[in-house]
Amino acid sequence: MPSSPRTIVTLTTDFGTESPYVAQMKGVILSRNSEVQLVDISHRVAPQDILGGALIMADTCHRFPPHTIHVGVVDPGVGTDRKIVFAEMGHQRFIAPDNGLLTLLAQRTPPSQLFAVTNRTYFLSTVSPTFHGRDIFAPVAAHLSLGLSPKRLGEKLAGFTMLAFPHPVIESQRITGQVIQIDSFGNLITNVLTSDLPTGVEPQAISVHCRSAVAEGLSPTYGCHSPGNLVALFGSSGRLELAVVNGNAAAKLAAGLNEPVSITW
Amino acid sequence: MPSSPRTIVTLTTDFGTESPYVAQMKGVILSRNSEVQLVDISHRVAPQDILGGALIMADTCHRFPPHTIHVGVVDPGVGTDRKIVFAEMGHQRFIAPDNGLLTLLAQRTPPSQLFAVTNRTYFLSTVSPTFHGRDIFAPVAAHLSLGLSPKRLGEKLAGFTMLAFPHPVIESQRITGQVIQIDSFGNLITNVLTSDLPTGVEPQAISVHCRSAVAEGLSPTYGCHSPGNLVALFGSSGRLELAVVNGNAAAKLAAGLNEPVSITW
Amino acid sequence: MPSSPRTIVTLTTDFGTESPYVAQMKGVILSRNSEVQLVDISHRVAPQDILGGALIMADTCHRFPPHTIHVGVVDPGVGTDRKIVFAEMGHQRFIAPDNGLLTLLAQRTPPSQLFAVTNRTYFLSTVSPTFHGRDIFAPVAAHLSLGLSPKRLGEKLAGFTMLAFPHPVIESQRITGQVIQIDSFGNLITNVLTSDLPTGVEPQAISVHCRSAVAEGLSPTYGCHSPGNLVALFGSSGRLELAVVNGNAAAKLAAGLNEPVSITW
Repeated sequence: MPSSPRTIVTLTTDFGTESPYVAQMKGVILSRNSEVQLVDISHRVAPQDILGGALIMADTCHRFPPHTIHVGVVDPGVGTDRKIVFAEMGHQRFIAPDNGLLTLLAQRTPPSQLFAVTNRTYFLSTVSPTFHGRDIFAPVAAHLSLGLSPKRLGEKLAGFTMLAFPHPVIESQRITGQVIQIDSFGNLITNVLTSDLPTGVEPQAISVHCRSAVAEGLSPTYGCHSPGNLVALFGSSGRLELAVVNGNAAAKLAAGLNEPVSITW
Repeated sequence: MPSSPRTIVTLTTDFGTESPYVAQMKGVILSRNSEVQLVDISHRVAPQDILGGALIMADTCHRFPPHTIHVGVVDPGVGTDRKIVFAEMGHQRFIAPDNGLLTLLAQRTPPSQLFAVTNRTYFLSTVSPTFHGRDIFAPVAAHLSLGLSPKRLGEKLAGFTMLAFPHPVIESQRITGQVIQIDSFGNLITNVLTSDLPTGVEPQAISVHCRSAVAEGLSPTYGCHSPGNLVALFGSSGRLELAVVNGNAAAKLAAGLNEPVSITW
Repeated sequence: MPSSPRTIVTLTTDFGTESPYVAQMKGVILSRNSEVQLVDISHRVAPQDILGGALIMADTCHRFPPHTIHVGVVDPGVGTDRKIVFAEMGHQRFIAPDNGLLTLLAQRTPPSQLFAVTNRTYFLSTVSPTFHGRDIFAPVAAHLSLGLSPKRLGEKLAGFTMLAFPHPVIESQRITGQVIQIDSFGNLITNVLTSDLPTGVEPQAISVHCRSAVAEGLSPTYGCHSPGNLVALFGSSGRLELAVVNGNAAAKLAAGLNEPVSITW
């Protein structure tokens, strides 16, 4: 059964904003199915930052309609013997290098289908060893958007590479996590989830510590404090974050990725 | 009467280039109407810069076909009691926080329809207090693109927040304005409009002063002077701007936003 | 014969990422044909860098389906008497200023059709002398996407401006080229092509020199050496490039555009 002509294909890469490499992938896809709806998730994953890409994909891909095809290319091992995988997870479809890029997605919803991508029938006729995104991932995504069954891509796999992702340390009156993402507002986003806090703790009883700064209490929003104040809140992806109202917490605290953040009550 | 299946939805935010927050909004919209045509106006509005976003929307939105839905999310008050508004102005439709983001658009064409956006039927079932763009604006835009009548969104409003925007001071032989935008070429774009100049003033009789530099005469184009020259001209949005031919006026003059610019003749 | 309703229009400019100028062009196109599929190739061409834009278009446009309309706006002479051209090359269609932006494309495939773009019927009714991209290129692209015959645009031309592009110097045991592009990974991409090397030279017999650094041998991929190593390889566009595995060659070698690179064996 062929897919609808308006299948969505998303792209997440570390190629940099408006890289011609991204446009080359889009040209290859549209040459095979000009009815595809292309959406950029982000091309600003830091170069070779597999976990950063994994985080963006895990926060974003499930927002798309079922059967969307998500192509992830953070692929420092391109052209070596690392595998390429097709996975279906939670009614979404993924094509990615087998290097851990799908770790967080799979922790939430294990794959219901998993295949190696090896059938050269669906690749470009010439494959550059340095750009599988254009020469393998893109044409395979286009074929899938036209209704190709994933089992035609290669042999069934039992699993794929999962990377260790830092988990917070949870003690009786303290949780110690770390900064895992900094957004364009300079908000410091941590690996501490709402569900890590024990039930019954009052929001105003909580202190959040990062470097020498402390945010007292959990706020519901950015805007309910005066500009310049440091606030802690659970953000839109369910993660604890530190923000400076109308300001930049990363700059104010001189804090970067992996910075420890502790919560006490 | 339902809209055409190819309704255009534009997005203007301060989320930063290729932010996953933007992609999350797109996923929410496409999950409800995969036939929408999405266009990014800009996500590089400076964080919390409502007037900067207002300027970009006013220069750009009227270029789109009638019934386009323009979603603006420059929203430092997200999650507080600020309203969200739907407005129809000049056959274009807008969803924005009620914080002045639509000021310049409304000065040109007052709203013909104006409603509060309060009907939770059209929101995501869970609304994060920090990301109304994804959880309210996006699904509301999708519902409108499918033909929902705006009057279903909430109660009719009599008006919305208008911000004071700096106007030039016009004297008999002098106009004093200021830089309100700097484009990627480093061109210094001011709040002085063609219509601010009295009729009958000869272009070559005009001097434009900014910091210690003077541009003599008004030029029709960037390219009719030698590289490196400072030129003054009325640009493509009808505003007086200072440019360095094949160079960067902001860097050469060390001038930033709000820098005074005076015109004498 | 009218084009398909899903004609693709690509945009390559030096307007900067997510510039509202780009969105204004998109609004103009969609106002005339809302069924167009718009694709950004890049808006990060350095300001006024015609050869940089030429290189991106030559590497990318041929990846798109036949009859795609490619709009190129790197146009420092906008509003002067430089011509605007329509060209068909290799079943792709191009609209560009006559300033050399199509040089590399035409070297590969000379134009099969070439017209001046002068017929004001297809322009916006008011043309800003500083923004032909919005007021001429965009509406002309929209008309072409609706099936307009290119011969309606203006008179037939015999040729267009070709810029000198730096070629490598090829000697018996040495090739001397230069860096012509730096991608977002910091890879140094040169003007030396696979076909410039004599046949029979062993990859491991080659040394590539740039500033005081030397890469010994040609590698098939980035990932087959340890992180931090300098490697030389023929990249995905067939050009010799220098890369640092999981690092940034431009930063490590302090090398920029035009830096000499020599190959010996």
